[in-house]
Amino acid sequence: MNLEQLVADLSEGRSASLARAISLVENQRPGFERLLAAIHSSTGRAHRIGITGPPGAGKSTITQSLVRHYRAQGRTVAVVAVDPTSPFTGGALLGDRIRMESVALDDGVFIRSMATRGSLGGLATSTREVADVLDAAGFERIIVETVGVGQSELDVSRLADTTVLVLVPESGDGIQTLKSGIMEIADAYAVNKADRPGADKLAREIEITLGIRRGNAFRHVPAHHGFRARAARGAAAHPAASNGDAWVPPVVMTVAVKEDGIAGLAEALDRHFAWLVSSGELEQRRRRRTRDRTREVVERAARRWIWDDTDTQQLIDARLDDVMAGRTNPYEVATEVLDGLRQGSTS
Amino acid sequence: MNLEQLVADLSEGRSASLARAISLVENQRPGFERLLAAIHSSTGRAHRIGITGPPGAGKSTITQSLVRHYRAQGRTVAVVAVDPTSPFTGGALLGDRIRMESVALDDGVFIRSMATRGSLGGLATSTREVADVLDAAGFERIIVETVGVGQSELDVSRLADTTVLVLVPESGDGIQTLKSGIMEIADAYAVNKADRPGADKLAREIEITLGIRRGNAFRHVPAHHGFRARAARGAAAHPAASNGDAWVPPVVMTVAVKEDGIAGLAEALDRHFAWLVSSGELEQRRRRRTRDRTREVVERAARRWIWDDTDTQQLIDARLDDVMAGRTNPYEVATEVLDGLRQGSTS
Repeated sequence: MNLEQLVADLSEGRSASLARAISLVENQRPGFERLLAAIHSSTGRAHRIGITGPPGAGKSTITQSLVRHYRAQGRTVAVVAVDPTSPFTGGALLGDRIRMESVALDDGVFIRSMATRGSLGGLATSTREVADVLDAAGFERIIVETVGVGQSELDVSRLADTTVLVLVPESGDGIQTLKSGIMEIADAYAVNKADRPGADKLAREIEITLGIRRGNAFRHVPAHHGFRARAARGAAAHPAASNGDAWVPPVVMTVAVKEDGIAGLAEALDRHFAWLVSSGELEQRRRRRTRDRTREVVERAARRWIWDDTDTQQLIDARLDDVMAGRTNPYEVATEVLDGLRQGSTS
Repeated sequence: MNLEQLVADLSEGRSASLARAISLVENQRPGFERLLAAIHSSTGRAHRIGITGPPGAGKSTITQSLVRHYRAQGRTVAVVAVDPTSPFTGGALLGDRIRMESVALDDGVFIRSMATRGSLGGLATSTREVADVLDAAGFERIIVETVGVGQSELDVSRLADTTVLVLVPESGDGIQTLKSGIMEIADAYAVNKADRPGADKLAREIEITLGIRRGNAFRHVPAHHGFRARAARGAAAHPAASNGDAWVPPVVMTVAVKEDGIAGLAEALDRHFAWLVSSGELEQRRRRRTRDRTREVVERAARRWIWDDTDTQQLIDARLDDVMAGRTNPYEVATEVLDGLRQGSTS
């Protein structure tokens, strides 16, 4: 493969080259890191939006509606749907993906599903790298949708400029059941299926929780009257506020299947991006992300070195009988391996 | 801390030392690998049982019932409940755990919950190491219960001698929705809530699927009549068979809340362990697990070396401005780091 040609085609937006580049990166085939190195200076132009929330909250529907909204605005948009879900729920997910294809018959849209393979940590890195390819290919919005399993909700906030947490009135006993850390990562909330009972209550709970965590329980809680009216027209229940330098996460009521509230959500996301730029927070977040990314790339390269370029595996195999017999143990073997690596003797 | 004393106390079964040892290992506090190295030759006596399945299948209830069953037999049993679930379902899980405490008022029982922290890969390794501590402390049965998110269903089969997959009649469209790889890891199936409609159908589907995968679709399918009777008395729907050297995973009907079928399940697990020993498969599985474990311990030690004992992080930080400005990129920086590690110049 001619890497230079692929990079050139990619920057010209040729869709065949895009699919090839993404496959290369996703499958970590030879040359993928050279490709990523070559496109790195072309990244950073897209607005990366992470959408997370519990299963059934309507993340895919919100994503589809946002895609249509952006296309109607003439913007290009790419979607990376990450699926670190239970192996026991494969069926439901497939349905979502098929529905999403309905918005994909358009050159200005690119949709890619990524399944769990290997560790979640590896998936998170791969997802960031696929987003880089899409960024370099010129997509203006990149939506990363994930079900937020385990640590992945933190991952989505680590790869997105703007993170949206989608909740629904049925979300159990509301936000009390959310583990700590979830509320903190959201830059915006979508209360989806807001035409169902309990939407106002959930929105209020979110705002109270945000207020409490900010040490001022009721500052941002809107009066209850009028709330229903905002919900009904699908606009932001609580106007997003940029309070001095602080960002107050807006709570947007949506009925994504009817596309209600989607314009308001898109507007909140644009407003957040503008705030990120003006406050200097975008630069800060991207610095942190670049630092994290470099750590991940180093760890991956170190693993490749240890297992592919040294005799570590042979050493482990040679000690296996002794370990099984209790004459040594994995920890002593690891110490022996590390001593070798430190001295460069095994490379 | 006196490690030798802790190891000695542990082997004498002192419960205070057990809690201390587990905390040490789970939190990877200084000395934890020396402890694990010291107890390694005392492990391998317990029967490690992995219980996995979709949320709501009744894994915790089955676990509790098994614990009571083993206690009634005079056996000691430890439970490690692993929770790599969505941060959005914290509430339900907490309930499970509180219910499980009801069986814990007994010296012959030890129950520990482990939450996701860091990567799932790290959690899997920690879980195996906690199981080692419990094994060295003399517990005869170690049950590891996990919801099977992402790759963790594979992890549970990698840490258990015997893996039980718990399903329920309501499991959607049955086993067609299970991703490939799930069926293959189970050494036994529990069709739980078997007093609900569809239990027979699910059991039949499992057996057909197992038969098909074995290239003989109907060999192991019991006649439909009589099936209900077996289900009602909670015994194995399909007697476990050791077919020459091959193990045929039994499908056991259970109603765990009533403890129906639990004796049959426990008996199937014992039979599987006996087969593992007699067939030589136990030795093979433990060799594979020991090899995997040693790889994991090496990777963890390598990460610690890179980040704690070398100037890798400082190098990354020194290059960060250049990366942000597009003068270099994470991949070039990683190459530079690796060149240093290979030559031992950064250590």
